[in-house]
Amino acid sequence: MDETQPTIVTAGMVVIGDEILSGRTKDANAGHVAERMTMLGIDLKEVRFVGDEQDAIVEAVNTLRHRYTYVFTSGGIGPTHDDITADAISAAFGVACTHHPKAMADMAAYYKGRGVEFTESRQRMARTPEGAELIDNPVSRAPGIRTGNVYTMAGVPKIMQAMLDAIAPTLKGGAKIHSRHLDAPLGEGDIGAPFAQLQEMHPETMLGSYPRFEGGNITTQLVVRGRDIAKVDAAMAEVEAMVERLTP
Amino acid sequence: MDETQPTIVTAGMVVIGDEILSGRTKDANAGHVAERMTMLGIDLKEVRFVGDEQDAIVEAVNTLRHRYTYVFTSGGIGPTHDDITADAISAAFGVACTHHPKAMADMAAYYKGRGVEFTESRQRMARTPEGAELIDNPVSRAPGIRTGNVYTMAGVPKIMQAMLDAIAPTLKGGAKIHSRHLDAPLGEGDIGAPFAQLQEMHPETMLGSYPRFEGGNITTQLVVRGRDIAKVDAAMAEVEAMVERLTP
Repeated sequence: MDETQPTIVTAGMVVIGDEILSGRTKDANAGHVAERMTMLGIDLKEVRFVGDEQDAIVEAVNTLRHRYTYVFTSGGIGPTHDDITADAISAAFGVACTHHPKAMADMAAYYKGRGVEFTESRQRMARTPEGAELIDNPVSRAPGIRTGNVYTMAGVPKIMQAMLDAIAPTLKGGAKIHSRHLDAPLGEGDIGAPFAQLQEMHPETMLGSYPRFEGGNITTQLVVRGRDIAKVDAAMAEVEAMVERLTP
Repeated sequence: MDETQPTIVTAGMVVIGDEILSGRTKDANAGHVAERMTMLGIDLKEVRFVGDEQDAIVEAVNTLRHRYTYVFTSGGIGPTHDDITADAISAAFGVACTHHPKAMADMAAYYKGRGVEFTESRQRMARTPEGAELIDNPVSRAPGIRTGNVYTMAGVPKIMQAMLDAIAPTLKGGAKIHSRHLDAPLGEGDIGAPFAQLQEMHPETMLGSYPRFEGGNITTQLVVRGRDIAKVDAAMAEVEAMVERLTP
């Protein structure tokens, strides 16, 4: 392996739930996973929101798991009839969905300790694709599931975040992406052409511009991103010079 | 056409932008479109987040536009080099991307009125797939684009919402989905089996449960949705009776 080549590690995500597509619940998990992946140096390439429909989940998971290093799913692993993610992941991998012995034992002990009945519904949350591993859930015990390169997590943000914390140290990170930014008192239309030239001159960095309108004023945040920090800094220096040149 | 059959109108959405996938910007547009579609009686079936890459945008748009009645996109229609949505939509439809005469005239007048130069970068925002129609942008003039059943909108939420307001009256609405909900002082594990039975007894409604953990207490919101309000109310009455029966 060429040591000068950074490792590229990629990820996809599937957000599952009718309540997201109806607008009843606003998804916060995709944004959280996106931030964490950037911190880990992993490129999140695609996110898909699908409903509680097995065919839709299977299609999304099977497309993304062959395309990216890792796939994360959130939602649909609770105890009720509309929680079908474990079944759908099993179908995607072509294996049976069965009660995982360790999950059953852990959850039986957890509910016993709290004096709560370990109902058949709650036992549904111990079902996993055959051969899958468990992801620890310190919040409410019912585990997440790792099936090959697919990590199945809860939809409740607090639980999803705890599961991702448990997963993160086991993921191989890519080369970290470095980022510099600058708020320019200019519109995108003022900087478009010279900014595009700078992008051409610095092909190993990614130059982005993000306008904000506030109180009638416009500010554009200019962002330089890249795996090589020296190249990011070199490009940023030229972006700063450009802004100084263009500011009236 | 059988008048007793409700009209099913579907939609997909593509959220475009590296800044969303890096976690730098949290998407708010998918949730807004989801809410508006529900109000219009249109089923939002799928959302995809992709980066500023032509192939990824083309794949998502071409898949969804053949699958659903409408497709909405947000992001990537500004004046800078990383704004490639107009080109990507043109490629998806196999047509040229050219400066739209009306958009050029409107924007030239707008910038002239503000004493701002109508730069080549700003003129990029007048580019559309050939044969496309314009979507009014009352916030900052540069228009959205309708190409067949694909509606291309800005990424800035305020502008996207204004564009969607302009589009909404032109969409054919489906049968409105009615929704009733009830907050139960129960965990999902307490209600799973009887709740699933109610779902089986009321196949023309959708029963969902959404737990919330707050200050050590658990509440589960039970939601009944459906196109026939009488059937929704009948199912909700039985859900209420179930909650009363199960509450200690």
